[in-house]
Amino acid sequence: MARIGIIGSAGRMGQALADAIEAAGHEVSGGVDRGENVAGLADQSDALVDFSAPPALNDNLHAAIGAGIPILVGTTGLDANHHEAIDNAARVVPVLQTGNTSLGVTLLAHLVQEAASRLGPDWDIEIVEMHHRMKVDAPSGTAILLGEAAARGRGISLADHTESGRHGHTGRRAEGAIGFAALRGGTVAGEHLVHFAGDHERITLTHLAENRMIFARGAVKGVEWLIGREPGRYTMGQVLGL
Amino acid sequence: MARIGIIGSAGRMGQALADAIEAAGHEVSGGVDRGENVAGLADQSDALVDFSAPPALNDNLHAAIGAGIPILVGTTGLDANHHEAIDNAARVVPVLQTGNTSLGVTLLAHLVQEAASRLGPDWDIEIVEMHHRMKVDAPSGTAILLGEAAARGRGISLADHTESGRHGHTGRRAEGAIGFAALRGGTVAGEHLVHFAGDHERITLTHLAENRMIFARGAVKGVEWLIGREPGRYTMGQVLGL
Amino acid sequence: MARIGIIGSAGRMGQALADAIEAAGHEVSGGVDRGENVAGLADQSDALVDFSAPPALNDNLHAAIGAGIPILVGTTGLDANHHEAIDNAARVVPVLQTGNTSLGVTLLAHLVQEAASRLGPDWDIEIVEMHHRMKVDAPSGTAILLGEAAARGRGISLADHTESGRHGHTGRRAEGAIGFAALRGGTVAGEHLVHFAGDHERITLTHLAENRMIFARGAVKGVEWLIGREPGRYTMGQVLGL
Amino acid sequence: MARIGIIGSAGRMGQALADAIEAAGHEVSGGVDRGENVAGLADQSDALVDFSAPPALNDNLHAAIGAGIPILVGTTGLDANHHEAIDNAARVVPVLQTGNTSLGVTLLAHLVQEAASRLGPDWDIEIVEMHHRMKVDAPSGTAILLGEAAARGRGISLADHTESGRHGHTGRRAEGAIGFAALRGGTVAGEHLVHFAGDHERITLTHLAENRMIFARGAVKGVEWLIGREPGRYTMGQVLGL
Repeated sequence: MARIGIIGSAGRMGQALADAIEAAGHEVSGGVDRGENVAGLADQSDALVDFSAPPALNDNLHAAIGAGIPILVGTTGLDANHHEAIDNAARVVPVLQTGNTSLGVTLLAHLVQEAASRLGPDWDIEIVEMHHRMKVDAPSGTAILLGEAAARGRGISLADHTESGRHGHTGRRAEGAIGFAALRGGTVAGEHLVHFAGDHERITLTHLAENRMIFARGAVKGVEWLIGREPGRYTMGQVLGL
Repeated sequence: MARIGIIGSAGRMGQALADAIEAAGHEVSGGVDRGENVAGLADQSDALVDFSAPPALNDNLHAAIGAGIPILVGTTGLDANHHEAIDNAARVVPVLQTGNTSLGVTLLAHLVQEAASRLGPDWDIEIVEMHHRMKVDAPSGTAILLGEAAARGRGISLADHTESGRHGHTGRRAEGAIGFAALRGGTVAGEHLVHFAGDHERITLTHLAENRMIFARGAVKGVEWLIGREPGRYTMGQVLGL
Repeated sequence: MARIGIIGSAGRMGQALADAIEAAGHEVSGGVDRGENVAGLADQSDALVDFSAPPALNDNLHAAIGAGIPILVGTTGLDANHHEAIDNAARVVPVLQTGNTSLGVTLLAHLVQEAASRLGPDWDIEIVEMHHRMKVDAPSGTAILLGEAAARGRGISLADHTESGRHGHTGRRAEGAIGFAALRGGTVAGEHLVHFAGDHERITLTHLAENRMIFARGAVKGVEWLIGREPGRYTMGQVLGL
Repeated sequence: MARIGIIGSAGRMGQALADAIEAAGHEVSGGVDRGENVAGLADQSDALVDFSAPPALNDNLHAAIGAGIPILVGTTGLDANHHEAIDNAARVVPVLQTGNTSLGVTLLAHLVQEAASRLGPDWDIEIVEMHHRMKVDAPSGTAILLGEAAARGRGISLADHTESGRHGHTGRRAEGAIGFAALRGGTVAGEHLVHFAGDHERITLTHLAENRMIFARGAVKGVEWLIGREPGRYTMGQVLGL
């Protein structure tokens, strides 16, 4: 049993995290939000989970360092400075930073990289995601994460090979392109498909999230794995042994 | 057994038609291509099938009128003048004009209209199509045909409600929008999905074409249905009894 | 705003119903469970919803009759005697009995019947359902409901045409059969696919439930539609205007 | 350019192989069928492909040994004696034996094993296959191949964990079971889905074959890879570098 502190406890993920921590037999040591005393929270915790916002990152990392405990960073929208701060903190305490804490998505990205690496560029890659009608950006962060896994598998740069938003006279598909399409509707929590379309056969790798609880549960698995590790910067892939 | 003449016999659909006509127990009375004698072909046929190109349409319709036989027009890219010519010909002989001769797609469009009509605008509609890597335009004609069926079911105009090519900061989904996404890859003959995404449930209607032969077979069914009809303009839906 | 009484309020559906009633702007007039005073509940309600168990059905119908209010019966496992009791009650008050209160499933059944009726027996029908790992029977009641819709569309008896549990040397598919397959795993709330597989093309009609809330919301829509009707026995299809 | 001899040239795969060999820029050195002179064929070939029948296997292997050339064995229905004969031949010449020559299926099996190995037994595995209406056995050989990959990934025996043909009162899903379902209809060349259903999320890995040509093309890739190898027994996985 671990005492886990939640940074960003008032947000949508905060409540889900509290439920997941308790469902896994751990204890919520406390929760803080913007401007609150994260160092105090760290002192009474065995680990921190941060689903707040980028401006708070430095304080959160320092709190973990001050208390000598691991921290999982699930905040999105990080820039190069944030990543440098994470690297620095990881010399002192264990830090796991990830754009998606779901175990299923983590595995899917691994399978996508593997498939892209084996199949070669005559298998066209198309990534489709569907999310609820309130989502305001496209493609989803997870779709990009999957696209990066595909590009890594092929040894190419995603930025140079993205094809998106086809409409009108497009011409034939660019060789080696990685296509993206974003569907929006209803209350879909998150669905991602990666097609590998070859000559007369197709492989499709799909992840379907029933609700957002899976991200909280994955974060708890990440924290469990993180407690007791050497200082260092870790990934969700390592939690799955990838 | 009917004698069926093929206009556009040298094209990709021409050969498929010849196979489908024979597989259905009919006879290919002959085939013509650009500049060839379509009137002569009509005289030795019980019906004509036209998969050629818009500029030939007038001659083809006159040949059918001259011989007093039905004609199925599967040519795409028709404009208002072409449709007027078809209306005129349909006063004299039976004419079936369609953008898609597949029975499956014809039925799917009917189901999409029915679903859109019953479900109401709080079910978001998204249309996805996938085709082979050589296709040069998006969305497919069949996707548009399905979008029109959805718009008709809802009593709205498709042109005013199309949402396509989402990328970047899109904002939340527009109310009542009909979304389109086009996937390209491999040798896919044609796959169409229509999602109706409501609150916590989703209905998806899908059509999958294994190859282009289905369009030829559907055209033959259309011709069989057309022979012996009164003069008039007909649709593939009527062939299915819709 | 209506006052709606819940019979079977302690069950899984009871709580979901209470939430859905309030979310729709109505009032929960009260809830009863086995042995409790359903007549008293009826007196203070504008309508009753019954998700209890078959043995309580007679008392519940009498309570509705006594108070002169409509009742929606969502209880499953009814036999011929229960249906006769419902028919009798429907002479005095409006009664809606259904095996599935989801609007999506109701529409899907309608589309399945329509497709089966139009496509003819050379399109093979296969029904696949997936549910969570705790479900103890197969196929699901909803899969059977969809099979009945398909059989009705074709004008055949489902009992005489069911093909299920293929394993080993099965021989070729029986002509006109309606196949069933049941998948079990995870926490899937309910997924149903109906394939119509023709020569070189396939139509697939799918319903996906994200959670059980949709059944409660559909029941509330059913009750709203029921209030103020003439006495009679109604179906969910009528709620959708089918 | 290689000269490739076809054993079983009159069968369905024989013609597809001839097409695939030529499409890949090689030459068909000849073809033999039952009772014909396979040794003569071997003498004028750089490699043999055997899609005939088990009784001919010994002669075919000896012909390859006599000519000192590689052989790809795609024949199904082999028993322990056949496998011993293959092992013996593989000491002298390169032999690739496989139940499925499709590159896509080969990769899918690899991904299934990887996923099963990483996800652990609380992710329920369900394998679904769909084939044309004429197929007489279930589940397909490829579904079993995928089941074996899943079982290998988990370190369990497939025979002890197969769950198939659910119908009636089944009770809850057995822990650690690998489920199979077989769909039949239309002209489907082959579709395989492997579901991993966890708590509130699901990963699905799918392979779709548009036609049987992919098996011929995969066999040619296998032969290309085989020519010039050391004697030994190889798998399709190795062709993909797995």
